[in-house]
Amino acid sequence: MQVMSDLLSRLAAGLGPNSIFTDPVDKEPHEHEGRKLYRGRALAVLKPRSTAEVAEIVKLARAAGTPIVVHSGNTGLTGGGVPYDALVISTERMNTVQDLDVANATITVGAGMVLADVQRAASDAGMLFPLSLGAEGSCRIGGNVSSNAGGIGVLRYGNTRDLVLGLEVVLADGRIWNGLKKLRKDNAGYDLKHLFIGSEGTLGIVTAASLKLFPKPLSRAIAFVGAATPHAMMALFQKARADCGTALSAFELLPRFGLEASLKHIPGTVRPLAGDHAWLAVIELTSPAADAPLRDDLETLLGAAFEDGLIEDATIAQSEAQALGFWRIREGLSEAQGPEGASIKHDVSVPVSRVADFIVEATALCEAALPGIRVCAFGHAGDGNIHFNLSQPVGMDPAAYLAEWHHFNTIVHDKVVALHGSIAAEHGIGLIKRDELVHYKDPVTIDLMRTLKRALDPDNLLNPGKVISIGDNAPPALPV
Amino acid sequence: MQVMSDLLSRLAAGLGPNSIFTDPVDKEPHEHEGRKLYRGRALAVLKPRSTAEVAEIVKLARAAGTPIVVHSGNTGLTGGGVPYDALVISTERMNTVQDLDVANATITVGAGMVLADVQRAASDAGMLFPLSLGAEGSCRIGGNVSSNAGGIGVLRYGNTRDLVLGLEVVLADGRIWNGLKKLRKDNAGYDLKHLFIGSEGTLGIVTAASLKLFPKPLSRAIAFVGAATPHAMMALFQKARADCGTALSAFELLPRFGLEASLKHIPGTVRPLAGDHAWLAVIELTSPAADAPLRDDLETLLGAAFEDGLIEDATIAQSEAQALGFWRIREGLSEAQGPEGASIKHDVSVPVSRVADFIVEATALCEAALPGIRVCAFGHAGDGNIHFNLSQPVGMDPAAYLAEWHHFNTIVHDKVVALHGSIAAEHGIGLIKRDELVHYKDPVTIDLMRTLKRALDPDNLLNPGKVISIGDNAPPALPV
Repeated sequence: MQVMSDLLSRLAAGLGPNSIFTDPVDKEPHEHEGRKLYRGRALAVLKPRSTAEVAEIVKLARAAGTPIVVHSGNTGLTGGGVPYDALVISTERMNTVQDLDVANATITVGAGMVLADVQRAASDAGMLFPLSLGAEGSCRIGGNVSSNAGGIGVLRYGNTRDLVLGLEVVLADGRIWNGLKKLRKDNAGYDLKHLFIGSEGTLGIVTAASLKLFPKPLSRAIAFVGAATPHAMMALFQKARADCGTALSAFELLPRFGLEASLKHIPGTVRPLAGDHAWLAVIELTSPAADAPLRDDLETLLGAAFEDGLIEDATIAQSEAQALGFWRIREGLSEAQGPEGASIKHDVSVPVSRVADFIVEATALCEAALPGIRVCAFGHAGDGNIHFNLSQPVGMDPAAYLAEWHHFNTIVHDKVVALHGSIAAEHGIGLIKRDELVHYKDPVTIDLMRTLKRALDPDNLLNPGKVISIGDNAPPALPV
Repeated sequence: MQVMSDLLSRLAAGLGPNSIFTDPVDKEPHEHEGRKLYRGRALAVLKPRSTAEVAEIVKLARAAGTPIVVHSGNTGLTGGGVPYDALVISTERMNTVQDLDVANATITVGAGMVLADVQRAASDAGMLFPLSLGAEGSCRIGGNVSSNAGGIGVLRYGNTRDLVLGLEVVLADGRIWNGLKKLRKDNAGYDLKHLFIGSEGTLGIVTAASLKLFPKPLSRAIAFVGAATPHAMMALFQKARADCGTALSAFELLPRFGLEASLKHIPGTVRPLAGDHAWLAVIELTSPAADAPLRDDLETLLGAAFEDGLIEDATIAQSEAQALGFWRIREGLSEAQGPEGASIKHDVSVPVSRVADFIVEATALCEAALPGIRVCAFGHAGDGNIHFNLSQPVGMDPAAYLAEWHHFNTIVHDKVVALHGSIAAEHGIGLIKRDELVHYKDPVTIDLMRTLKRALDPDNLLNPGKVISIGDNAPPALPV
């Protein structure tokens, strides 16, 4: 306790006023993730105002041997941000635009800037920052970078990794690495930024990022499509990609169960197609040209797909309100599963060529394992990324169902790995998949990860025990 | 010598027949780079047929403490492939397509496959592999990956790094890391492939790569444009990017001196514009749609630019032959500078917003330093990547001119760094910029690079002394 009290005194001396929070009420929101699967303990919550202050915190914490967990919006779904007797650094005060260069199509922002604010700053300058995901109103860009966030713009614009041109990072020893380049081409030495992108705060602390912007789309067309099978839907995707190229900005799949759940539980949703279809898709085309004939292109695509027998029905949004309605159904899916009872979730990817096989085969395995289970396989089919969620059978005891969590994880992840996929497509590893990663990855991969962790954080003080465990201070990997 | 003879005996036992070449005639092409600025010595040239054989070589070389340099096409321009008393591994026999998945839009190839063969394999399957550069007929994909090659497709498709989905790598201890994923989304642990992309064979040996393919462009329109200043040209680029989005697949700049040199020295080139213009650009639009109105789009763009006073003249290719002719002028630029005498070359990048400033300011500095010097600033202006080459004054002694090499490096690179650019945009560091890198980069960056090198190649046996020097066995960094 004396050590901690000394550390807090030193931190108080090193930081500006009102930067250290130790009251349980202030700490509580930082001690668990949204679903409360994990609950840890924060020694204190620190709110630095600058990169220099972050560096100062790291130096003092290191001297005291105290672990550090960084919080952006704390919207992660893997337990990756839960502190176990660690200091929490909240980046929320480092939330300004440092540079906006329209001619270079870049924006440089502090790690604590809320994603929606980055989108807004870009839009106000006539540009697009394309990262877009459910939590965008509260997640912060440092967390997006550290988790290599995905979302609904990946098909056209790539993952967060693809949007980052430069980073500023506080290293485990408190030094500041200034890699805030905003260059499209730079082969001057090792590309260090990729070490920190997607490593969930275990190798360094992202304090600022230079990000790519794009011309704002000025035309948009969006369709809601019904088909009989995942294979038919993925054949439509192939056709859309070949014919429309980068105009194709979204191809999102959902099953009948997902559509019905959204219509039932999400206010303001309207049934887009009169008929009953086993599979649905939201397809969006965009163009930076104001007069691009995207509706015509969509009609041509869907007309041909209908004639080929790929799809059963389709409708193209006639208004912006209708377009938003289509998206509302898709975006409401996560929320809509709640009222349907307990859910066992998977965030996986396979090659795009195996998406339909994966859905059919994994569904059969799960239904055989538990008759009545309701598979909600939905998401970014064009990226090969499926949220393979399993709602409990109607009437089953939720606790009894959730006791099968690991059983179904094994069924689904074994199938994913057999198809050369990934057990963590866009949500990351955190705690929840840390030990599964070791199970599914080859020992060379795991050893390389430990080599990097030891080289960059030799004292194991940056988000210890997350992603990859080394040493003895690894927190539990199973929900507690 | 006994150690070497023992090593060669063990290698002969471990490899298939006709795999080891020690005759000076066989070794000579592997002992220097194309320009012969550096000349080293190969202990032997090894031509393994499989990844397992590469791994065996590395294990045996490591046991003997013998350095290894890997050769793909040996087309690099930085001395990065010159062996100094090292074994050379040529990947040329590992040159097959391992997997071609059109529905997933990926191809997996051995590291020794010639780039043009990869392009052809993709094309035969109805797809595009977009990496394209002057050496594509002889460079091999492992070298492209290890150097993060750029070229003329970057504006639309990104650098090699952006095209790689997975890698297979032999590590410094001879273990094989199988990261040959072909997934669009994969957040399952640290993204290890980025360590090896662009690290020029100093952290591991790339033996195979999974690469992204794209829909083949079915329409194309190409213009040759004249303008008075770099600033006018870059204003045109801004307009083209905003109006055409990803249809804009190339925006290549060249100066009057470059055009005239191409017309004079490259057979088959034809003057595209009747008038005399200080600056020229090749602009290309492409689309996967067969009937995209790209000529109309180009006419609209260039008509508006003419009315705004941005450009002086422009012509749109009326035939495929004329389109190829425009490209021939651009692609002949490197060769065309040869007959103009000695040349001091720079491969640099700045933010796209500073390209015109860079050209104007660096040109003024160079012309002031040596009246009569002929600046040939050309290249991938849309990527911010300028090949800032300096042809000697007419009549000057070439040796006396080349003695000013470092003087002009300093002038140009100081300006690049002042504009927050990179002294190595697409050609890499190798030997030629190794010590300049240390001069221009901050110590934290250099220290992080050394940390990685020590962690992944603790015995400093993989291409030692290239990119970053550690230990005592660093070969000379200056041309010898």
